[in-house]
Amino acid sequence: MPAGQGLPARHVLHQVRRSEAPVSSDSATRITPGNALRPEDIAAAGIKAPADVAEYALRLGDDSLILAQRLGWWISRAPELEEDVALGNIGLDLLGHARSFLTYAGSASGRTEDDLAYWRREGEFRSAHLFEQPNGDFGRTIARQLVASFYLYELYTALMSSTDPTLAAISAKAVKEVDYHRDHSAQWILRLAGGTEESRRRITRALELTWPYVGELFEDDDLAVSLAATGAAVLPSALREGFDAGVGAVLREAGLEVPAVPAAPGGGRRGKHSENLGYLLAEMQVLAREHPGASW
Amino acid sequence: MPAGQGLPARHVLHQVRRSEAPVSSDSATRITPGNALRPEDIAAAGIKAPADVAEYALRLGDDSLILAQRLGWWISRAPELEEDVALGNIGLDLLGHARSFLTYAGSASGRTEDDLAYWRREGEFRSAHLFEQPNGDFGRTIARQLVASFYLYELYTALMSSTDPTLAAISAKAVKEVDYHRDHSAQWILRLAGGTEESRRRITRALELTWPYVGELFEDDDLAVSLAATGAAVLPSALREGFDAGVGAVLREAGLEVPAVPAAPGGGRRGKHSENLGYLLAEMQVLAREHPGASW
Repeated sequence: MPAGQGLPARHVLHQVRRSEAPVSSDSATRITPGNALRPEDIAAAGIKAPADVAEYALRLGDDSLILAQRLGWWISRAPELEEDVALGNIGLDLLGHARSFLTYAGSASGRTEDDLAYWRREGEFRSAHLFEQPNGDFGRTIARQLVASFYLYELYTALMSSTDPTLAAISAKAVKEVDYHRDHSAQWILRLAGGTEESRRRITRALELTWPYVGELFEDDDLAVSLAATGAAVLPSALREGFDAGVGAVLREAGLEVPAVPAAPGGGRRGKHSENLGYLLAEMQVLAREHPGASW
Repeated sequence: MPAGQGLPARHVLHQVRRSEAPVSSDSATRITPGNALRPEDIAAAGIKAPADVAEYALRLGDDSLILAQRLGWWISRAPELEEDVALGNIGLDLLGHARSFLTYAGSASGRTEDDLAYWRREGEFRSAHLFEQPNGDFGRTIARQLVASFYLYELYTALMSSTDPTLAAISAKAVKEVDYHRDHSAQWILRLAGGTEESRRRITRALELTWPYVGELFEDDDLAVSLAATGAAVLPSALREGFDAGVGAVLREAGLEVPAVPAAPGGGRRGKHSENLGYLLAEMQVLAREHPGASW
């Protein structure tokens, strides 16, 4: 074969290494809101989260991780190829947020993002029940996205002012992405509500099935109250008004009602979950657990 | 609720519509290599592929579509969260290439990308057998990625000089992405080969299971020969030397052998497939087929 053809593997590796750590050392030492804060930056900076902030970051990371896993299922299963791409991208955005929050959460106890994702039991996950709800039909996934994206937008907007610079920086990056997720879900709600009789029937039913899980997102508990007192976090209940206004406007425009359904019991923040999470974790964790300590 | 809070849905829709069609009309009328050529641009430009070019574009689109579906499975199932993100991104890149090639393929017969993805039977798919191979363990997915990415890199590099401006433009965009996919797979081959005894054993076996599907990628047939004569396409056999050089360099660096295994029968370009494709299509097509003609 002619010299100079093909790709010398050493060159490949050099390229990969370079592109892996672009300006990591710059941003790691200067965590300010607006910085693109990657999990590698957090790990490299040697930042250690206070114990209560770590517990809070675990909630944030678990919410995004579980929803990302659910959305990944849709790649090449959505009703349009364009939508495959959209849901896949949203899933990857959420996975990115999860990685940052989990890296920060783990810093308090010397655990990595992978330790937290693959080596905790169901009862140690701190995600709210909304995120573990099944994909169902496409309408149900969109109803879950509507609630998730408008909730996360309110949350991250508030957390940009957190007195904890790492939470503030991760949120400042994430809020731009969940802002797009809001647009995406709102557009689909309108399209499904204004589509065929069948699509309207399905999205109406999907909203009814989703709404029982809204209340848990805005419940205050001891951790939230104490972190809100220091300014590190925000009271979940304080986010409700903005959420209701945003979601309400979308539903009004679509000619749909805010469902009047009783709330589900919740308990996710204390590690109480539905059977849905067990199945999800089994799938998510099997490969990492099959090879404990292996280099992959 | 205070005025100005929340998100008026009309504003949402306006934003979404704007961001959907950024400079579509500009690039649609000027298809030159190097342009970012999106499926919307192809559809909007009213370009119509010649019948033989359409058949060729179908092969290109199917290869990427089937591999994208396989890779989507890995989101939140890979051995590391970082790797979830990487495989997810590679899958979405491939889905993007598939959408462009299928849109162009469909232009000859008035069919959309979705018509081609969701409404063809197994025997109408033109993908090579490599792409429908199961994910297997992580090593097997990486071995498949090594072959796929080095093959696609050689192919798209050659097609940038196609006399068909649409094929050339799609390839010019895609080649930048598959170049990154080459780096990704090469890095993992080295990491797995140099990892534990178990990871080396597995990647060695994975390469043996993958190599029977290499030969089909470089087989010439009537369509390829006639399109190569006009300069619209490239002879598959002409890509083999570059592929062997590139992949050979990676395997040498990893201290692995090019597997000496017999070739599988192939036939994908004529619609002959293994049972793997049937199961994959069943999953991929079920939702779109459940709602024929529905607005979602």
